[in-house]
Amino acid sequence: MTENISLETAKQLIDAAEQKADEIGVPSVITVANPDGNLIAQHRMDDAWLASVNISRNKAYTSAALEMPTHELAEPSQPGNSLYGLQTTDDNRIVVFGGGFPLERDGEIVGTIASSGGQVDEDMTVARAGIEQFQTLVH
Amino acid sequence: MTENISLETAKQLIDAAEQKADEIGVPSVITVANPDGNLIAQHRMDDAWLASVNISRNKAYTSAALEMPTHELAEPSQPGNSLYGLQTTDDNRIVVFGGGFPLERDGEIVGTIASSGGQVDEDMTVARAGIEQFQTLVH
Amino acid sequence: MTENISLETAKQLIDAAEQKADEIGVPSVITVANPDGNLIAQHRMDDAWLASVNISRNKAYTSAALEMPTHELAEPSQPGNSLYGLQTTDDNRIVVFGGGFPLERDGEIVGTIASSGGQVDEDMTVARAGIEQFQTLVH
Amino acid sequence: MTENISLETAKQLIDAAEQKADEIGVPSVITVANPDGNLIAQHRMDDAWLASVNISRNKAYTSAALEMPTHELAEPSQPGNSLYGLQTTDDNRIVVFGGGFPLERDGEIVGTIASSGGQVDEDMTVARAGIEQFQTLVH
Repeated sequence: MTENISLETAKQLIDAAEQKADEIGVPSVITVANPDGNLIAQHRMDDAWLASVNISRNKAYTSAALEMPTHELAEPSQPGNSLYGLQTTDDNRIVVFGGGFPLERDGEIVGTIASSGGQVDEDMTVARAGIEQFQTLVH
Repeated sequence: MTENISLETAKQLIDAAEQKADEIGVPSVITVANPDGNLIAQHRMDDAWLASVNISRNKAYTSAALEMPTHELAEPSQPGNSLYGLQTTDDNRIVVFGGGFPLERDGEIVGTIASSGGQVDEDMTVARAGIEQFQTLVH
Repeated sequence: MTENISLETAKQLIDAAEQKADEIGVPSVITVANPDGNLIAQHRMDDAWLASVNISRNKAYTSAALEMPTHELAEPSQPGNSLYGLQTTDDNRIVVFGGGFPLERDGEIVGTIASSGGQVDEDMTVARAGIEQFQTLVH
Repeated sequence: MTENISLETAKQLIDAAEQKADEIGVPSVITVANPDGNLIAQHRMDDAWLASVNISRNKAYTSAALEMPTHELAEPSQPGNSLYGLQTTDDNRIVVFGGGFPLERDGEIVGTIASSGGQVDEDMTVARAGIEQFQTLVH
């Protein structure tokens, strides 16, 4: 049976991601959303960028709405490529750079996690710490 | 006399497109709109991306609003080209990649059909199955 | 196990609602959405009002977002009552008059159905024809 | 010295509010924002309404933007009163029913807390549990 992630689980994933963000010194905004891209929990770490509130939420939305990590959209949405222009569709909620990921259980997407606050690779590192935490909960 | 496409016709076109989408294994959102770009019918196939609900609708809108298939906008909207920036005009409803097409009867646009759910060429294949169905109805 | 309504089911509910709308002579726009308020299928009957495309979709959204029929919001949102102003919250997607209903299976909301096109009581009659059809499928 | 509320403090306030929401059986969405109305943290409790994600956030925004509890806006925004129409200003982010409150330290607003998920008086009760927690931290 597929279930949405609970708030309790979401808080644990965000805690793990925050810890990683602290460790690498990148104040971040971390969001966990449900499979329809709607917010379960969002934390803005002290000193994280204001813009990251929106970007983090929309990375979480994008991962749900297109069922893939947001960094996979970077290449196809470049000028000259097949999905050029993608980022202005869907009421501008589509983010085409990394930091948003689906959370899967038994091959089903049960939620998403996203981080914004630093370089793209830093955002991916922070979000992935949440995914690792999720995997310890699932197994 | 030009007439809008009826809901009955729209359902037949969507059915044909859905059949093609099933055949090629691409769960899709298929929209039929009237010549003003307003929705007549929209179906989201099971497991189709959430983002495709909006993108499919806007491809149908774009084909009506600019009276051409959306894939013809890909080249002119590239950086350096004449319509660069087009996709952020018109309240961001303009989609500049393929999958939306006008439906014509006697050289008049009587509606549009659009698909979103896979690669651009897959979306075009699905929408074209609806166009073929339309041509059998017209003749 | 709770599952979203399938497109196949959605089409059957809309067909039943359309038949009722025809019967009472009220061209309507009928929408079926998932429990997060996202569209599964929408049909605009010939001659239905353009505004009903949006209103029908938002009634379906509202029933999901507040987990109740939209007519139950009419009284509390009146001037002087506790939820006055509700209709302009949530990006103006909240509709506070009748015609949107949750679809329940075993006490769980598995989707919503909404109609717009006539008087409020007519919209409720049309949507309820879809609910009755749903109940024959569930049992 | 006026300081924004830290994420650590925000989490404690939300925890206290969640505990109250559990106690009264009203799954809620609780938001803490900074004095500019921008999000610090937001939690959607399991089974809380989807619409409450947006309404909770906007109650927190409103309390910051107008520097008062949202229930004080209910009366002046009624038809015939001085601020009739207020709720559709400021990009529709103004919520004119109760559940959002400023958080004050030494007479300065240092943040806001808001809850959405039940009747207006329930939302106020939940948010006030967060305020009480805040007062134990300040003193």
